[in-house]
Amino acid sequence: MNRFPDRLLNGYRNFMSGRYVEQSARYRALAETGQKPKTLVIACCDSRAAPETIFDSGPGELFVVRNVANLVPPYEPDGQFHATSAALEFAVQSLKVTDILVMGHGRCGGISAALDPDAEPLSPGDFIGKWMGMLKPVAEQIQGAEILTQAERQRALERVSIRNSITNLRTFPCVRILEEKGRIQLHGAWFDISRGELWIMDAATGDFKRPSE
Amino acid sequence: MNRFPDRLLNGYRNFMSGRYVEQSARYRALAETGQKPKTLVIACCDSRAAPETIFDSGPGELFVVRNVANLVPPYEPDGQFHATSAALEFAVQSLKVTDILVMGHGRCGGISAALDPDAEPLSPGDFIGKWMGMLKPVAEQIQGAEILTQAERQRALERVSIRNSITNLRTFPCVRILEEKGRIQLHGAWFDISRGELWIMDAATGDFKRPSE
Amino acid sequence: MNRFPDRLLNGYRNFMSGRYVEQSARYRALAETGQKPKTLVIACCDSRAAPETIFDSGPGELFVVRNVANLVPPYEPDGQFHATSAALEFAVQSLKVTDILVMGHGRCGGISAALDPDAEPLSPGDFIGKWMGMLKPVAEQIQGAEILTQAERQRALERVSIRNSITNLRTFPCVRILEEKGRIQLHGAWFDISRGELWIMDAATGDFKRPSE
Amino acid sequence: MNRFPDRLLNGYRNFMSGRYVEQSARYRALAETGQKPKTLVIACCDSRAAPETIFDSGPGELFVVRNVANLVPPYEPDGQFHATSAALEFAVQSLKVTDILVMGHGRCGGISAALDPDAEPLSPGDFIGKWMGMLKPVAEQIQGAEILTQAERQRALERVSIRNSITNLRTFPCVRILEEKGRIQLHGAWFDISRGELWIMDAATGDFKRPSE
Repeated sequence: MNRFPDRLLNGYRNFMSGRYVEQSARYRALAETGQKPKTLVIACCDSRAAPETIFDSGPGELFVVRNVANLVPPYEPDGQFHATSAALEFAVQSLKVTDILVMGHGRCGGISAALDPDAEPLSPGDFIGKWMGMLKPVAEQIQGAEILTQAERQRALERVSIRNSITNLRTFPCVRILEEKGRIQLHGAWFDISRGELWIMDAATGDFKRPSE
Repeated sequence: MNRFPDRLLNGYRNFMSGRYVEQSARYRALAETGQKPKTLVIACCDSRAAPETIFDSGPGELFVVRNVANLVPPYEPDGQFHATSAALEFAVQSLKVTDILVMGHGRCGGISAALDPDAEPLSPGDFIGKWMGMLKPVAEQIQGAEILTQAERQRALERVSIRNSITNLRTFPCVRILEEKGRIQLHGAWFDISRGELWIMDAATGDFKRPSE
Repeated sequence: MNRFPDRLLNGYRNFMSGRYVEQSARYRALAETGQKPKTLVIACCDSRAAPETIFDSGPGELFVVRNVANLVPPYEPDGQFHATSAALEFAVQSLKVTDILVMGHGRCGGISAALDPDAEPLSPGDFIGKWMGMLKPVAEQIQGAEILTQAERQRALERVSIRNSITNLRTFPCVRILEEKGRIQLHGAWFDISRGELWIMDAATGDFKRPSE
Repeated sequence: MNRFPDRLLNGYRNFMSGRYVEQSARYRALAETGQKPKTLVIACCDSRAAPETIFDSGPGELFVVRNVANLVPPYEPDGQFHATSAALEFAVQSLKVTDILVMGHGRCGGISAALDPDAEPLSPGDFIGKWMGMLKPVAEQIQGAEILTQAERQRALERVSIRNSITNLRTFPCVRILEEKGRIQLHGAWFDISRGELWIMDAATGDFKRPSE
């Protein structure tokens, strides 16, 4: 028999008796007026890196796309379904967000797969293999750096991939134009699951640094 | 000058001085051992419906895909990038989740666009138009029900779309096989932003009901 | 007129009226019995990374070689002067240290020079060019990783160079034999000048990690 | 199992909770702007004679080479690795130090080896033997002074060697030219471990004297 998981149901009851009580007026207002988030976050599906948790954000604050390894594909105006491009278009054109954050994290399973040239497909469809194939040009450059340890290559690609996604964001005409007009800013960040540290990308150099205390 | 948003930085500092302090051991353990979430949630990008908030869940609990209108496309093993299928494959084959939840919500902008036959493309790429086109066969049936009010058609499509995504989940061989073996369960839920209510889909009938208190 | 710098003289007077007063018995004993340090540190000349400061160590604790970029050359039993090899031999064979630490640091000027293929010689003798040429085989691999930022390549080589020096330590028969007998251990560490953080090399993987609090 | 020494880890924690707290702004500034030390110190590896301790100096003050017996070899622009010459070149040409101090000390093990004509090689490579061989011409003259006690010969060579290193410093064209222009000064000092006394070389006569109080 199909049964809704108790852990979800109990969590939902905690929400209703806790945070919802505090913020019921805000939820009602957000339902009436619609959402007006200022930030689009492109994050990973990973269970340890939820943006709302890391940024302690409440309802209405973050419009969030989550896919494996927080990737942004390049602009491809063909006839296909593009989950990430659709969310990007909606956030920028309809919600008029002012900031887009690509947020990666340590120990990312997708990045790990992208670095493993011998990875077996997880299923005959090989969806992960194809999805992470988006990083192939940059992943190969990192794989070639054999002098680095595996963990160092992983961290390098996690960060290179964020820069790569930001480059891809700029292939979308609407993003590029609004950035040139100063109406939208693109950001990168990387979250260290183990220590809870957030490393922020310097827009000028591409380097990741922890914010000063 | 590009500047990381203060609201995010302040939120992050709240996280570090609050929830992270409480759960630092858990974060460290999750970094060491890797994630082992039991649940895949397919949710909407909407800023008012974050699964971690609604299910009051901590790090390591939910593997979360978020796209506009929480859609699952049908199985298409072609050469394209498929964000949602890749995440599904990873969750089922690699993480071996035991439950998949498709979670919709009220006042969904994507569903609203799918019901508007005169919707203008948001950009020349028309990514939202194409993405929501995935619902065209069912959206047309709802549009034809002119006896319903607009709000009723919206709520109807929000729920029909959840059932449609669950049907599409079963086109993935790995999901169908594991469901038949009783090793995975598929769930639907719908969240009422205004009242904070969670409505759970009855697997047998497809009806949505509030859980008893 | 040649004049001994006041800043050194004043510093020396601080030492005499401060730390020396506290530790005069220890200095006297160390003069009588000779030094018996347990640790050889191979560190950089950099003015921001003195081992005695970073390890808060007192007289008699650390036997310290300092050269540009904390390099260990490979074993070369020829007729030349080998400052580092001589210190290594003395520490291991005569002082019988139990631990050897190669300690690098961030923003190292020597490493920076090793990564710059167009660096001009600092003088006709080009001593820095030749000295850092010891890293040429590994530096070239890092230079090739053009997908990394300059700061990322710098940090990568700072760490690769530590591992390289540890590899070179093992080319010295006395080190290799004592390590095999379990009488000596080799360590790597990297110091972040800006934040004061010490990152310790995992001997098994070569990765650098901060010690847990 | 390889284990980072607790004594170093505890010392580092003392540094972080003590001196680093006081000087974190200085460390950050030194990381941002780079080091600008005014003094190059050529000192011995001996664990009882760390220049930063004896001159009570903070981060950024001293650029420090340490080799066995604080030797400076003569200028040899060949193809070899020269640790000390490379550091000298870097300090003078790149950092533009204004003072170079050769600092010896009492009871120096390297000097003691240089005075022992029957010293056995410490290892087949005989690196110490070759390194101290740099002093052979002056050591033989001291050995011949049989009227002196062994301790007197030791102290004599410790001081002769400092003068010899200063002579060698002047074989480097960049040092000689800058000294002639009055832009760099060369100093000698000798540290008495037992009493904590610093003896400073008189540049005109070569004599070592204690500074007046």
